[in-house]
Amino acid sequence: MPDASRLRILVVGASGVLGRAVVAELGQRHEIVTAGSKSGAVRLDLADPASVVAGLKAAGPLDAVACAAGAVNFAALSDIAPAAIADSSYGLGLVNKLMGQVNLALAARGVLHDGGSITLIAGVLADAPIVGGSSASMVNGALESFVMAAAIEMPRGLRINAVSPTVFEESMDGYAPFFRGFDPIPVARAARAFSRSVEGRQTGQVYKVL
Amino acid sequence: MPDASRLRILVVGASGVLGRAVVAELGQRHEIVTAGSKSGAVRLDLADPASVVAGLKAAGPLDAVACAAGAVNFAALSDIAPAAIADSSYGLGLVNKLMGQVNLALAARGVLHDGGSITLIAGVLADAPIVGGSSASMVNGALESFVMAAAIEMPRGLRINAVSPTVFEESMDGYAPFFRGFDPIPVARAARAFSRSVEGRQTGQVYKVL
Repeated sequence: MPDASRLRILVVGASGVLGRAVVAELGQRHEIVTAGSKSGAVRLDLADPASVVAGLKAAGPLDAVACAAGAVNFAALSDIAPAAIADSSYGLGLVNKLMGQVNLALAARGVLHDGGSITLIAGVLADAPIVGGSSASMVNGALESFVMAAAIEMPRGLRINAVSPTVFEESMDGYAPFFRGFDPIPVARAARAFSRSVEGRQTGQVYKVL
Repeated sequence: MPDASRLRILVVGASGVLGRAVVAELGQRHEIVTAGSKSGAVRLDLADPASVVAGLKAAGPLDAVACAAGAVNFAALSDIAPAAIADSSYGLGLVNKLMGQVNLALAARGVLHDGGSITLIAGVLADAPIVGGSSASMVNGALESFVMAAAIEMPRGLRINAVSPTVFEESMDGYAPFFRGFDPIPVARAARAFSRSVEGRQTGQVYKVL
């Protein structure tokens, strides 16, 4: 049975649509430390590995790290030319949402209590294509396979999972034109998948919320 | 029905274990242009976008591009620290196997005849973890989702698929310690999946060969 004690949880991207829902869900039972690039108790820029490491050190001992942040470019494939990562339309997603979260997971090993958990955010585009979404698909697919792989090598019983939700009802004002025909979900459902990762005991899982 | 005419196919990584098998399979019916970083009719370094673009231009008009190349690091997670891509253990895979093949696909749009195909190489570690394999898992997962997404935005009926094989019998001398318990396959089976991609008509597929 999951341990019902009060956990100390760092929520990265706590001010966003998803982050607020994760704070609302987990904050009912646990101590939340908010983090973000522009707001939060801890300032942490996923794109900057030194900032990720420093932010986790500043957060202090934790039972869980939950990430609800990560940027990618949306661009028509016809507008994307071959380029090095630094100059590529794919660069933002690879540096920020992918390696930002990977670095967060790697750094979290140093501040999590035994048996603590890391929960990363992927997304439905790993499995479903939309026009302009090739970078998001690439990055989300990478994250889903990364947590599966990293899980078997985490020390001290640390766990790592990903939440992979479809588009949120709360985000449809901006996203609807890109996600026509997708059934949006209440963001609270995605937040419950974070609870399942943090308060359950599985590792290496991808919780798809569709 | 697939067109049975003779195709002109660029095979990248033609001198490797998989590349030789792809050449043997497709060369029975089609014209093969070999490419590689150190050998082949066309010299092409996946890690260098300018070289990828120049290599495809040098190859001239093609009906298919098939990639059997792409490097990744294998490293224990405990030896991997947070770092920027350029300094990261994950950098090689992201620059070479992932973005090298993505750039190959983007550049191939300019030299493929209408209805031509692009076939990239992913691998079983997208779905199955091994110790030291977190980079390969990340990259293979990224490639599988990328081809699914890029397929819906390819111009002129161009197709893009991935082949995702398990470990090859022919590679077990070096790989066996890392793939204990995995059922190796004859590399010729993976080569047949390239045939299915090139000579079939599907797009956005991941042909898993297990």
